[in-house]
Amino acid sequence: MSRLAVVTGVPGVGKSTVVKLALERLKEVGLEYELVNYGDVMLEIAREEVGVKDRDEMRKIKYEIYRRIQEGAAERIANLAKEKPVLVDTHCTVKKPEGYFPGLPKWVLERLNPRVLIIVEASPEEIAKRRSRDASRRRDEELSEEISEHQQMNRAAAMAYAMMTGATVKIIKNREGRVDEAADEMVKALR
Amino acid sequence: MSRLAVVTGVPGVGKSTVVKLALERLKEVGLEYELVNYGDVMLEIAREEVGVKDRDEMRKIKYEIYRRIQEGAAERIANLAKEKPVLVDTHCTVKKPEGYFPGLPKWVLERLNPRVLIIVEASPEEIAKRRSRDASRRRDEELSEEISEHQQMNRAAAMAYAMMTGATVKIIKNREGRVDEAADEMVKALR
Amino acid sequence: MSRLAVVTGVPGVGKSTVVKLALERLKEVGLEYELVNYGDVMLEIAREEVGVKDRDEMRKIKYEIYRRIQEGAAERIANLAKEKPVLVDTHCTVKKPEGYFPGLPKWVLERLNPRVLIIVEASPEEIAKRRSRDASRRRDEELSEEISEHQQMNRAAAMAYAMMTGATVKIIKNREGRVDEAADEMVKALR
Repeated sequence: MSRLAVVTGVPGVGKSTVVKLALERLKEVGLEYELVNYGDVMLEIAREEVGVKDRDEMRKIKYEIYRRIQEGAAERIANLAKEKPVLVDTHCTVKKPEGYFPGLPKWVLERLNPRVLIIVEASPEEIAKRRSRDASRRRDEELSEEISEHQQMNRAAAMAYAMMTGATVKIIKNREGRVDEAADEMVKALR
Repeated sequence: MSRLAVVTGVPGVGKSTVVKLALERLKEVGLEYELVNYGDVMLEIAREEVGVKDRDEMRKIKYEIYRRIQEGAAERIANLAKEKPVLVDTHCTVKKPEGYFPGLPKWVLERLNPRVLIIVEASPEEIAKRRSRDASRRRDEELSEEISEHQQMNRAAAMAYAMMTGATVKIIKNREGRVDEAADEMVKALR
Repeated sequence: MSRLAVVTGVPGVGKSTVVKLALERLKEVGLEYELVNYGDVMLEIAREEVGVKDRDEMRKIKYEIYRRIQEGAAERIANLAKEKPVLVDTHCTVKKPEGYFPGLPKWVLERLNPRVLIIVEASPEEIAKRRSRDASRRRDEELSEEISEHQQMNRAAAMAYAMMTGATVKIIKNREGRVDEAADEMVKALR
């Protein structure tokens, strides 16, 4: 059976640091995952099939075509997972002005069929602090509440994805200064 | 593609005021939504097909027939949405003595295929206050906790609906005295 | 139509006491449920079909075979429910090192088709106290947080199961010293 896992987390949660560390440790014990970014695979397909040049152009694609590209990406990644362990980097939900957009709708899940769905979380306050270092455009407290809501919606989405696929949902807390523990937890979910 | 959105909210949240304001604003910019109440369409079909007279009689219908009517309503609304933008007024979940009843189960979602699911929320304390003006039959604190639970369950339900359809989930806070902001957010989700 | 309900709750919540009391009361009014443990039925099938001896051996079964056994159990229970009311004792999610494992994935729900999903809950602090009487291996506060997370994930899972089946989700609070009230609520969901 394929070994295919998905890793998600809201922006600013520190997902890539934890992933990097966990994949290094797994490699040391002989389990080598290929890290694949879902959006990159979609862009690749969009280039091939509809001549899209970059992510900006991706946003202008019609819904029906977008969905076909999304399905194509799921199939391509599922095929790759037949050859080697794959960790898919994507979003549980994407927050947009029109609402939370599900990253793994039914037609993606049916093709991808992941065994594990990882959510990397951090305290909303810490994430808000990290984000406002870049932006500082809003009061941190309000931003914290929004991040907390987003993380809650991601948990609900992940459990719906789990119902559809039988995948386990692993919540990993990336606590400030304790990235080692977070990586340990990720190793448990991926080995 | 059809423009079909669903708007939900627990009783007392002030949903209809926000909807009215948002639809007026959208009309001003040339985007005219037809507001359709899901329960009304079900009653219409129940009248035609099984001779039901009112909502009271609806409650006595057998499960299998109820489900067929529910499916029929979804089809009728989806057909309407081929001609014009439709906003469906319904419930994310209905709270009954036997538990939270899902307003949009799989067989409804597959026929309705909404693009946006809106949840209008308010602080449980404010909703409790509004409700007890009418009823005052229970301590406000206990009622607040129940409303908070109901709103949490609605979020989880909405994300499951989103997984099934790819719809976005828009949470709109209807804050006391700030209905204008809530209407603005609804416009973002519907335009 | 079959009368099939599912009852769930995290370990230490006091589920069996509430179930026992509720089933007694229902029996008094002439409604007799058969209580069926999902894991027991799976073990039964695993014994018959793949010669497994106990629960320990169940854990070593390959995923594809495990899933077939899980489906078989759902079918067997659904058949039983054609003859008499059945209450299925199982887990909303099972907490494992690799994450929350969904107790009722799509292929189980489609065969089981429950009308009601009951979640027995208790305050995380009370559950932590009960569990540490046995184990005391961890600080109660940390354990409380974990139990709270688990209960939240169970709610999300249950709403996804409800979307799939149309079942209602009944949350029952098993408050310390008030098991009678909890049983009353369960009776409401099952009668």
